[in-house]
Order: sequence, then C-alpha cells, then structure tokens
Amino acid sequence: MKNKQNYQDIMDRLVEIGLLLASEKNIQKLLDRIVEEEMNFTKAEGGSLYIRKGNYLNFMVFRNRILENKIPRESILKRIKKSRFEINEKSIAGACVKFDRIISIKDMSKVEEMGFSYDRSIDKELGYETKSLLSIPLKNPEGEIIGVLQLINLPEESFTEEGLRLVRATAAQAAIALSNGLLLDELKKAQLDTIYRLAKVAEFKDRETGDHIMRMSRVSMFIADSLKHDPDFSELILYASPMHDIGKVAIPDHILLKPGKLTENEFEIIKTHTTIGAEILGNAETKLLKVARKIALYHHEKFDGTGYPEGLKGDEIPLEARIVAVADVFDALVSKRPYKAPWPPDEALKYIVSQKGKHFDPEVVNAFVDAYDRIIELYKPPTGSNSSP
Amino acid sequence: MKNKQNYQDIMDRLVEIGLLLASEKNIQKLLDRIVEEEMNFTKAEGGSLYIRKGNYLNFMVFRNRILENKIPRESILKRIKKSRFEINEKSIAGACVKFDRIISIKDMSKVEEMGFSYDRSIDKELGYETKSLLSIPLKNPEGEIIGVLQLINLPEESFTEEGLRLVRATAAQAAIALSNGLLLDELKKAQLDTIYRLAKVAEFKDRETGDHIMRMSRVSMFIADSLKHDPDFSELILYASPMHDIGKVAIPDHILLKPGKLTENEFEIIKTHTTIGAEILGNAETKLLKVARKIALYHHEKFDGTGYPEGLKGDEIPLEARIVAVADVFDALVSKRPYKAPWPPDEALKYIVSQKGKHFDPEVVNAFVDAYDRIIELYKPPTGSNSSP
Repeated sequence: MKNKQNYQDIMDRLVEIGLLLASEKNIQKLLDRIVEEEMNFTKAEGGSLYIRKGNYLNFMVFRNRILENKIPRESILKRIKKSRFEINEKSIAGACVKFDRIISIKDMSKVEEMGFSYDRSIDKELGYETKSLLSIPLKNPEGEIIGVLQLINLPEESFTEEGLRLVRATAAQAAIALSNGLLLDELKKAQLDTIYRLAKVAEFKDRETGDHIMRMSRVSMFIADSLKHDPDFSELILYASPMHDIGKVAIPDHILLKPGKLTENEFEIIKTHTTIGAEILGNAETKLLKVARKIALYHHEKFDGTGYPEGLKGDEIPLEARIVAVADVFDALVSKRPYKAPWPPDEALKYIVSQKGKHFDPEVVNAFVDAYDRIIELYKPPTGSNSSP
Repeated sequence: MKNKQNYQDIMDRLVEIGLLLASEKNIQKLLDRIVEEEMNFTKAEGGSLYIRKGNYLNFMVFRNRILENKIPRESILKRIKKSRFEINEKSIAGACVKFDRIISIKDMSKVEEMGFSYDRSIDKELGYETKSLLSIPLKNPEGEIIGVLQLINLPEESFTEEGLRLVRATAAQAAIALSNGLLLDELKKAQLDTIYRLAKVAEFKDRETGDHIMRMSRVSMFIADSLKHDPDFSELILYASPMHDIGKVAIPDHILLKPGKLTENEFEIIKTHTTIGAEILGNAETKLLKVARKIALYHHEKFDGTGYPEGLKGDEIPLEARIVAVADVFDALVSKRPYKAPWPPDEALKYIVSQKGKHFDPEVVNAFVDAYDRIIELYKPPTGSNSSP
C-alpha cells in the first residue's frame, strides 16, 4: 500500500509539474522553472538547460544550490554565460542529442574513460566537484530534440531503472511546455515584425522613418508597464500601438506631404486619419485589433477635452489612447523633422510634464516619468563595442 | 510488484497522452483526439466535449462506440450539432463548471433525484441508454475552466477514488493541450486578421475592395493544398499572400488611380511595386516575412520568362510566387473593375488553363484545376438562409 500511495503522489506531482510549467508564458522564466522543478523532483544539487539551434546547443540556465550559497549568482553566470557549442559526441550534452538518449554518469571521475571530454576548470575555479550527472534530451511532440536538460550530483536512486523512468516522464512534461513556449514566442515575434512592417507603410507615405513606429510602441509599452505592472496589458500596447497612424494612408499626398502651413480645410482632412484608421481596424473580433482601433481613433484626444476627433475628456478617453498620446508626442519631439530640429530628451520630458492635465493624463505622465530611465535607453545611439574589457 | 508495474504503465500512458495531444495543432482534431484518448483510457462507451464561451458551453465533439456502429455519424451529429447552453446548476455539465468539480453519476436513473434535468430524447431517438456519466472540468494552467469533458457508460472502477484520480490526471493533460491549442488558435486568428487589415491599406489606395485580398489568399491556400498536402505550407501561403501588393502604397496616386491607359514610363513606375514591396518586407528573420517578401517580389514573373521585375523563368521563380500569380490573376478576372465586367468563373478557368507554360507553371495550374471546386465556393453569393428545413 505504501508503494501505491507513493506512485499516486508521484503521478499527482507529474501532473502538477505539467500544469505549473504550462502556466509560464515568459520563455526565460519557463526555462528557469523547468530546471528548478526538475531539481526539486530529483533532489539534484544543480541543473542546467541548453536550447538547440541547428547544430549548436546554446546555454540558457545554470542553477546550483551549493554554489549559489557560496558565490554571487552573477559571477557564476558571467563565467559561463556565452557558452554555445557544436553538437557532437565529444561533449555529454552533444552526445545526448546526437544519439537521442539519456546519458547517465554515476561516477564523473570515469567520464574521460567513457570517451567524453569534460571541462573541469569551472569546478576548480568555483571549488566544486561534479560527481554524477544526467543529461536528458528534451523533445517536442513531433519527436525533434529542442534542448538538453542536465542535472548534477543526484541521489543514487535517480540512476535506477525506475529513477530514470521518472526523470524521463517529468522531462517529457517539461519538453511539452518548452515546445509550446518556443512556438508561441516565434509566432509572437513574427506577428510583431509583420505589424511593424505593414504599419510602416502608412509612414512610408508620410516620409517618417520606420524607427518612429518601433520606438513609440516601445515607449508606450514602458509607460503601460509602469502604470499597471501587467505583462499582458503591456504586450497588448506594444502590438496595438504601431497601427495608430494607419489611417494616414488615405490622406491625399498633396496634403500629407505639403511643406508649408496647412489651411483650416486641409487640417480637417488630416484629422480624418483617426476615423479612417478606426474604420480600417474596425469590426474585429480579436482583442489586439479592438485595442488598436481605440488607439487609432483616440490618440489625438486631449485630457482637457480640446483634442479630436470627438473632443473626449479625461477618463472618457480610453487608457490605451492616453498612453500612446504621450509616447507619440515624446517621440515626435525628440525626432528630427524637415520643419524642426530634434529636441534634447530632457527638454521633451519637461514639455510632457508641463502638459499634465492639459494635453495628457497626469497619471500617465507620472508613469512616463517613472519609466523615463528605460525609455531614454531607446534614444541612445548604439555603442560601438559590446565586448567585455 | 504487479501493482507497481501497473502504476508505471499508467504513468507512461499519462506522459504518452500528454505528448500525443500536444502534437495536434489543429483545434478540431485536437478536440476529437482528447475525447478519443480519454475514452480509450477509461474504457468509456462514449464521450463528448464542450468549450466554454463566457457563460455558455458550446458543444464540440460527440463520440460513441456503440451508436457509431448502428447509425451514420452525420445523422448523430446533425441531431446535436447546434447545442449550446447556459452554464447553471440544472445541467450536469453546467454544474460541473459552476461548482468547479467532477460530477460523477454511477446510476443515471437517479439523475433527476440529484437535482439535474436530463434530456433523454436523444437516447430514445437513437435507441440508446446512458447508464453512467462523468463530467470533468477542463482547466487552463491559470485555473480557469475552459471546457467540460463528459464520458458515459464507464466501467465500475472509474468511480472509485483511484479511478477518479486517474481521470483527473489525464484530464489535466488534455486541458493543457486544449489551452495551448486555443491560445495558439487565437493568436493566429489575430495575426491573420491584422495582416488582412494592414494589407488592405495598400489596396485602399488602389480602390480595390478588401475582398480581393481575402479571396486571393484563400485561393492561393487551396492551390498550395492540392499541390503539397502540407498544412504548414498551406497556412504559410494563406498568411503571406495578402501582402503581395503592399508596395503599391508607394506608387503616386496620379499613376495608380489613372483612369486611362498608362504611358510606358508610368508602367515602369507601377512595376516598382514589386521591388518596393520586397523592400518593405525585406531583411526579416521570420519565415512568414521571408515568404511574403518572395511573393511580393516575384508574383508578376511569368513561367516563360516574360514577366517582371527580373524576367525569371520556370523554377527560378519561387513556388510561392508561382502559386500566387495564378490566384491573383484568377481573382482579378472574375472581379468587377472600373474598366471591365467580371468574367464568369468558368471563362476565367479556361483562360488560366490556356496560359499553362506561358504565364503560369503547368503544375500549379493542374493544382488549381484540382482545387477548383473548393475555390469556386469562395465566389458564390452567400445563401440567404442557414436554417434547416
């Protein structure tokens, strides 16, 4: 009966791991969690995870209970961060992929006899000894190996037939979550890139650089982040905001590209880019397009009610549009335009703050100020060198 | 030892179910498979599945081993297809959602005593008896109920504590797969809708109806389907083809919208919509945009080498562009334009076939002909009534 209870517990635990991992949508957190859960489950002292890219394994996660208590985590990570190696039978993880099987090494002192080369310099440097090791291939549901999980210094029972069976079972749960996470990540990346490119099309006409769209959508996301601390909301803003000016595509060239001052009538036509944008994005069933429509329609409304197209006031303006209004104006101010020099960012910040309660929602301005350090990074010229000293 | 072996088998089976379900990316197939696997696992005679939409349960799958041997499946499905009901404690599935727990009924003759209303008309009509039932909530990893799995006529042991524990475990695996499938589906739907709307923007200028883009992308998908029978390839064509004319956004209005015949010089400018499209979609890392770029660049090439912009011939033209070329011309022919009446579809078909080896790749034309019955459905006016007689 003890045995049965034991198995029931293990089964419950297996299901629990599956659920826990499936709930993590952020890919780096998911990777961390996979290693952590597998370490808990097997009582291993340490674990690491590699993601396969073609014929290479990229190092993604390193955890070690003992070392983390002795040495700051960053200095461990620094030591091994950049490792990426070719898949071949010389390394343990490489062999695990190449031969498509778990490699179990109960006694690491014999690892060279087994034909593997093993770098002991990290152990030596950190005053640690890797005594035993399991290297487990992670396969997607189609059977392709997408990564390798490595566990070190495990209890004896992990190396029994039954122990390995359990490791295999939990690794399968982890691999499903990983495969889903990677798929979702790729799909989202494709979606964002597609949105950027197609949204650029409206700006293409307007002769603005495509960078405006990318930057203002990221500024919007940072503001959203400071305001709500809800990653789903921030992501929605990131994806929906690039489409804010899509309606400009319908504005005739001779008005949109007019170098001089617009007549009142011409300005009325320009204003229609908000309602036309809403039409293009309207009647959608998806959350993304619903939010995109609100932003396109209302990003020129002002908090004090003096904006267009409807002259909405305060909370009548959807929050998403209030956020994008700040990001759009900020990016326009710090950008060079044919008719104006770029403002220094700090001047633009001052202007934004001065418009609290007038053009902009005070709370959104506060969130903008809170996020300013992250925002300003977007406007720094890329540094020439990334190499460490 | 027997017991242990038994549990090991169950655990392996649990992992196997998780993998099997995770591998199914088509949502309707996944739903079918969930019911089938759960029926196999529990040895239930029948099973059904409901998906939750707000406060309603939508009927999605019905399976029954006994009935399927007696009555054609379609006539069973017809009988119950449209059922959708409000979630409340009166129905078994509703109560299962409302009280967030498995409802197990060992003896269905007592179901009314338990306070449920149960429609026996289907049983009577089909000459069947529902004797026992399990109704299991399917929860996403965030703990929200996203559906209900119902199993009927199960063996005694399913109603023991242990039996229910196993059902719960497999249902959790199913729910993870379902939740991932729904998420992926929603994301893809949002992506396709976004692509359609943004791609329409180029056509917006061109005064073509947005329907052109939707129809030609579906025609392209059907051709791809006939040609390769690879759902991933077909889906890629569906998503990438709407962007084929995106470069038109950069063509000045007075040329693009000119009512009369274009001068040679003006036509040279029109031609640049292919290379400009490729520029807009270029330098991407995602498969979708890479394929979209190829299509934008090469959809005006002709199989005999007389097309533009590069005058490529035969296989030099990417397959994706050879497919879209056929779909684009076919849709243009059967559509009304300011300068031409719509062709009858069969005339357009004849023209396409006559261009085998000239404008079009013969194999793509053959695939078009094979898919013609599906394609022609897209051009039928929607029927007035959907109600059954």
